Amino acid sequence: MEQQEQQDLHFVIISDSVGDTARKVLQAVLAQFPSVTVHMYHYPFIRKMKDLEPVLEEAKELKAFVIHTLVVENLSEYTDNFCVAEDLPCYNILKDLVRDISETTGQQPIRRAGALHRLDDEYFNRISAIEFAVKYDDGKDPKGFLDADLVLLGVSRTSKTPLSMFLANKNIKVANLPIMPEASVPDEIWQVDPKKIVGLTNDAEVLNNFRKERMIAYGLSPETIYSDMDRIRAELEYAYELYNKLGCIVINVSKRSIEETAAIIMSSIEISDTTIIP
Amino acid sequence: MEQQEQQDLHFVIISDSVGDTARKVLQAVLAQFPSVTVHMYHYPFIRKMKDLEPVLEEAKELKAFVIHTLVVENLSEYTDNFCVAEDLPCYNILKDLVRDISETTGQQPIRRAGALHRLDDEYFNRISAIEFAVKYDDGKDPKGFLDADLVLLGVSRTSKTPLSMFLANKNIKVANLPIMPEASVPDEIWQVDPKKIVGLTNDAEVLNNFRKERMIAYGLSPETIYSDMDRIRAELEYAYELYNKLGCIVINVSKRSIEETAAIIMSSIEISDTTIIP
Repeated sequence: MEQQEQQDLHFVIISDSVGDTARKVLQAVLAQFPSVTVHMYHYPFIRKMKDLEPVLEEAKELKAFVIHTLVVENLSEYTDNFCVAEDLPCYNILKDLVRDISETTGQQPIRRAGALHRLDDEYFNRISAIEFAVKYDDGKDPKGFLDADLVLLGVSRTSKTPLSMFLANKNIKVANLPIMPEASVPDEIWQVDPKKIVGLTNDAEVLNNFRKERMIAYGLSPETIYSDMDRIRAELEYAYELYNKLGCIVINVSKRSIEETAAIIMSSIEISDTTIIP
Repeated sequence: MEQQEQQDLHFVIISDSVGDTARKVLQAVLAQFPSVTVHMYHYPFIRKMKDLEPVLEEAKELKAFVIHTLVVENLSEYTDNFCVAEDLPCYNILKDLVRDISETTGQQPIRRAGALHRLDDEYFNRISAIEFAVKYDDGKDPKGFLDADLVLLGVSRTSKTPLSMFLANKNIKVANLPIMPEASVPDEIWQVDPKKIVGLTNDAEVLNNFRKERMIAYGLSPETIYSDMDRIRAELEYAYELYNKLGCIVINVSKRSIEETAAIIMSSIEISDTTIIP
């Protein structure tokens, strides 16, 4: 194998708002370089020249990659020009798209910092969706199933809670319910449109390992009924039968991150388009 | 005011994984054009040429803007070349940064689709953080305060729950507690390092409106004790005094989105760097 150069890279992220967009892009890029050592410096809410200047001086000092999403024209141009003059690699993430949309539509961008985080109806609906998901997590109140945009069913350790929170952040009202052979399913579930229901499963082996670890964490013997393979298989069979009766879609989460499972759900389930933040 | 051209724009988002990065960039750009009518077509998990081709044909049909984060070389190049040939505007979001990091470090990108969503330790820690936040939401169990990376205190309607979930998704273990004059604060709060505590407040007028609306939603008269201004001021004063005694930082959320408040918290609070997803 070729000997590869190893060196630390410095990244300065500058935003006039939260800075999540630039960070997201950088994370996606860095995932392609798992062995590079990275130092990130994050400067959100840079809205005045006097705040920008010391950040750029620091970037120069560090010989950093400068990644920015500044939309206010003088700050954005100043940053680009500074980087050219100082020979720093500079990535103005929004620039090309903003320019081209402006040319195509004949409209000027509003160039308002923080426009993505307006406290508008969509924002408050999203906040409500998150509160809804916490309120109706873990089958706490069966009334939630009737008001939900989406009902997640799943045996233990199928990521119901984090998946609910993730989808809530996309403006979807989610209720979830743990499925186990001993507890009967609340009547409300049968009143929900099956197109709004997703059944989550996992591989028996994965569940077995999860549960053994949980037992160990509790200071108990890992070989309890909770981790017994026959028991796990019976649970999964019970869940499959239920999903079949309901006619809902079924997703095995064993090799999927919540982001991946969420993307599948969002493209499979009939949720009114207007409720989803695109 | 100049008469502006109005037309619908079509955007085709292509990703070999979830597609959140491209979507995030596009959302930030579109926030700068609030009056443009937009149609978004979202194609996640495009990992084979046979899946890519029909998507590109559709983009051609729609004369769409093509935005992609494809990292597998042949798919990425094919897309770029197709768009050049068909004269479609094309945005390969990760390309320049990947090329420049590769040149600087001498390392080749792994070009693995979905590398951002690896099921690694960091991922499972984040899942735990979300479960933690749900478990210790709303002061449910005071033991959570001692294990938390961050404790949020706040009067009613200061976005404690959605803020906790948002920060949990950044891998921070958050517990939150509602503050009201009648309920004494659990002893555990006084054992927490004040640098890990954030006190949330809001403007009295904003709270008054929130609470009136809540009363109306419940079918009650909006003029109850819950929305009484003197009562609200007393609650806020009580909270301020408590925050002062604790010596924690205080953030007024009245004009801030949860993303903005979270960014302030993450740059103010002493959370061990290793626990935060950068």
